[in-house]
Amino acid sequence: MAEPPLPLADRMQCIDASGIRKVFDLAAQLADPVNLSIGQPDFDVPEACKRQAIDAILAGRNKYTVTQGDAATREAIAESLRKEFGAFDGPVLVTSGVSGGLLLAFLATLNPGDEVLVPDPYFVMYKHLVRLLGARPVFVDTYPDFRLRADRLEAAVTERTRMLVLNSPANPTGVVYTAEELNAAIDVARRHGLLVVSDEIYTAFSYEGPAASAWPMYDRVLLLRGFSKTCAMTGWRLGYCVGPEPIVSAMTTLQQYTFVCAPSPFQAAIGVGLGTDVADHIETFRRRRDLIYEGLKERFTVEKPSGAFYIFPEAPGGSGTAFVRKAIEAGVLVIPGNVFSERDTHFRIAYAADTGTIERGLEVLNRLAATHA
Amino acid sequence: MAEPPLPLADRMQCIDASGIRKVFDLAAQLADPVNLSIGQPDFDVPEACKRQAIDAILAGRNKYTVTQGDAATREAIAESLRKEFGAFDGPVLVTSGVSGGLLLAFLATLNPGDEVLVPDPYFVMYKHLVRLLGARPVFVDTYPDFRLRADRLEAAVTERTRMLVLNSPANPTGVVYTAEELNAAIDVARRHGLLVVSDEIYTAFSYEGPAASAWPMYDRVLLLRGFSKTCAMTGWRLGYCVGPEPIVSAMTTLQQYTFVCAPSPFQAAIGVGLGTDVADHIETFRRRRDLIYEGLKERFTVEKPSGAFYIFPEAPGGSGTAFVRKAIEAGVLVIPGNVFSERDTHFRIAYAADTGTIERGLEVLNRLAATHA
Repeated sequence: MAEPPLPLADRMQCIDASGIRKVFDLAAQLADPVNLSIGQPDFDVPEACKRQAIDAILAGRNKYTVTQGDAATREAIAESLRKEFGAFDGPVLVTSGVSGGLLLAFLATLNPGDEVLVPDPYFVMYKHLVRLLGARPVFVDTYPDFRLRADRLEAAVTERTRMLVLNSPANPTGVVYTAEELNAAIDVARRHGLLVVSDEIYTAFSYEGPAASAWPMYDRVLLLRGFSKTCAMTGWRLGYCVGPEPIVSAMTTLQQYTFVCAPSPFQAAIGVGLGTDVADHIETFRRRRDLIYEGLKERFTVEKPSGAFYIFPEAPGGSGTAFVRKAIEAGVLVIPGNVFSERDTHFRIAYAADTGTIERGLEVLNRLAATHA
Repeated sequence: MAEPPLPLADRMQCIDASGIRKVFDLAAQLADPVNLSIGQPDFDVPEACKRQAIDAILAGRNKYTVTQGDAATREAIAESLRKEFGAFDGPVLVTSGVSGGLLLAFLATLNPGDEVLVPDPYFVMYKHLVRLLGARPVFVDTYPDFRLRADRLEAAVTERTRMLVLNSPANPTGVVYTAEELNAAIDVARRHGLLVVSDEIYTAFSYEGPAASAWPMYDRVLLLRGFSKTCAMTGWRLGYCVGPEPIVSAMTTLQQYTFVCAPSPFQAAIGVGLGTDVADHIETFRRRRDLIYEGLKERFTVEKPSGAFYIFPEAPGGSGTAFVRKAIEAGVLVIPGNVFSERDTHFRIAYAADTGTIERGLEVLNRLAATHA
């Protein structure tokens, strides 16, 4: 009898290795690439946060915390939400990054066949996690300006729709939705009783005033935030989730059997992280945003981003994949738009890099645009 | 129109909050409980590991590592496996604890309806994770002595069986399988082409010589180990997985969209963790094992455990739940057997506690046994 094949779940066919990773693999073959592909800040964790984490390690706070996270940590988060929104008294779940919160949120709420509205372009994880659970992402096109349009959302709702995912400031477009846009989208969600998952990981990176939050607009918002980007601690795996009690409660039960708890010594740093003044960093990123946008706008069709640290120009020649291949051959790492979209017409530049790197990248990209269009 | 209910996934009905957690909630109401419920060592992380983690934080190693884990960390793990088993050259995935490895392993391999052989009593996570994915745990009774019996495994195999989960040294029984027992079980797995998931989180805690590992016995073993118990770093969320390339590869893809990576600064401590001499701690735990076993054996029907830090006596009166309620009322925290079993006839004592605590617990438990039987 032939040996049966190794068991591999059918759900593996719903996902593939991240296209970002493929670029990283290509990059490994380049000697001195101009790296404009990295989705994390180039500064380090604030000293005060490091100090807190180190003190926690030395003090022996190295064991499990309770599932929902250390009580003082949750209170610090609740207090920061009270300060920001005037009132807050719901349950807080400390998650292993926003990614951890997304997995738990989708696991807690989505049945096979359920539909999830996902504005396109989108952060790649939404698509894969939704599919992994047998649910269906329904992409709502936001080209060419990436604004959220309530009529397009409304048109995509069916009787299977359960959720709307929002991400503002947005990866990969850098768009920040206005309060009016958010309100109009929330109206659609309210009309159909949808849960709104609001991924606000980039909320601190907003260059034209504070980013509006969906949180106070609707009682079915699941708010996910993290410290990875604001405090440059992507490797610390820390975020939080607040929202409707039954859902946060289900996520907490799921956390027992998955993440167990967010890394304990780093939880101790959250209080400090919440109070960290990153204004200087944000100002640096704003200047980079200006540099990249001004440097691209002559030769590229491109929207000016107002948040996060990405810009999403049209690819000269029409194919994101083809243009990115040229760019990588010329030593500049960027990501093709089809990693983040059902279209392959754009590409993503991450400008979390120093001025010299951005300028070198601009020079190559503009040269390619001149010859490749 | 009535508002539709909040979306909650049907899979939430397959799991419930851990029974351990319920005991912790009860415990919170007690002034000075004798806590024999905690599944983690009472010593602290070794100083050298702390130092490595702190140095990594200070050196700015706070960003994502690659998905599969820092290269030097993986090489240190591979080297330790070469040393232990003579040869090793497969891929290594650094996971967020063994729990993280279990979730990824089950996600990567189990389809709805698939059956998983789980010796009963079992670590509670197996049951819940398998059910969460729509697969079915098939419990293989190991009472009264908790030994692994190949004939019982064989009798439980059907055409839907895909996996056998092994856990030695075992939670909650403290049993360590002999090489012969393991070999006989592996023969069953081999005959049916099953994947064997070998959870060896307690491997360092073995009191009658080194615990045998399933790893070298069969090419379809997925080996999961961690640092949480050996190095008392349950809050650091660190483990690793090795096994058949297609499965480790699928798990790595899944990690991109779930855990992203194990906490970066703690990965740096793994090399040191692997080389840490915990012989003194193990000797302490052996003495505790002797103390608890000798203290129970007169009044309780109980197997002498040879590993981990649990003992699993029969409940006087026949009901684990009823006896544990009495114990908690008397200030002693232990866990009813039905948390770990389809039977409710036993209870789990964790003896990761100092001698005084163990002695206080023994006194109360023996008093209860005298009156409750």
